[in-house]
Amino acid sequence: MQLDSTLMALADPTRRAILQRLARSPAKVTEIAKPFRISLNSVSKHIRVLERARLVKRHVSGRDHVLTFDPAPLRHAEQWIHDHLVFWTQQLDELEARLSRSKP
Amino acid sequence: MQLDSTLMALADPTRRAILQRLARSPAKVTEIAKPFRISLNSVSKHIRVLERARLVKRHVSGRDHVLTFDPAPLRHAEQWIHDHLVFWTQQLDELEARLSRSKP
Repeated sequence: MQLDSTLMALADPTRRAILQRLARSPAKVTEIAKPFRISLNSVSKHIRVLERARLVKRHVSGRDHVLTFDPAPLRHAEQWIHDHLVFWTQQLDELEARLSRSKP
Repeated sequence: MQLDSTLMALADPTRRAILQRLARSPAKVTEIAKPFRISLNSVSKHIRVLERARLVKRHVSGRDHVLTFDPAPLRHAEQWIHDHLVFWTQQLDELEARLSRSKP
């Protein structure tokens, strides 16, 4: 499910930092890996999680793999949390009102 | 980090369904497990993930463990996604404008 992969992709500080970097400009995998104190292999794994979540697109140009950021799935995740927060908060408020009415 | 555990907790349909159930009313672990076609042990694991994310609170009353839903961490996650979406979209728009100006 798209929502699962978006939320899972966002639930990690390294992956959020990669998105932060790509929001400035497209970049090669090696450029993205440079500031992180983890192996290129680990960074590549994080990038693959972001690609599966469709937050990052990869364009292959000769030997270069250039990554760009697509924020579209974030909009869906924001909307989902917003809608459920409104609905659930309303239900919890109604429940609290019912309970306080039933108290002697 | 609180945001990591909130997003990770939400990134699963069973855990979202448990929150959906608890938004109606507090419930015992066995009551929550009933409609799911997975073991009580699996449901308990999902509940522990929700507790670590502070989305679910457990009240022990004798032999009963009653669970309630606390939506507060969702507000923080919604705000985080909203703020970053605004900021990143603005950066990507500026980037696109710069690129289109530099085209011959």
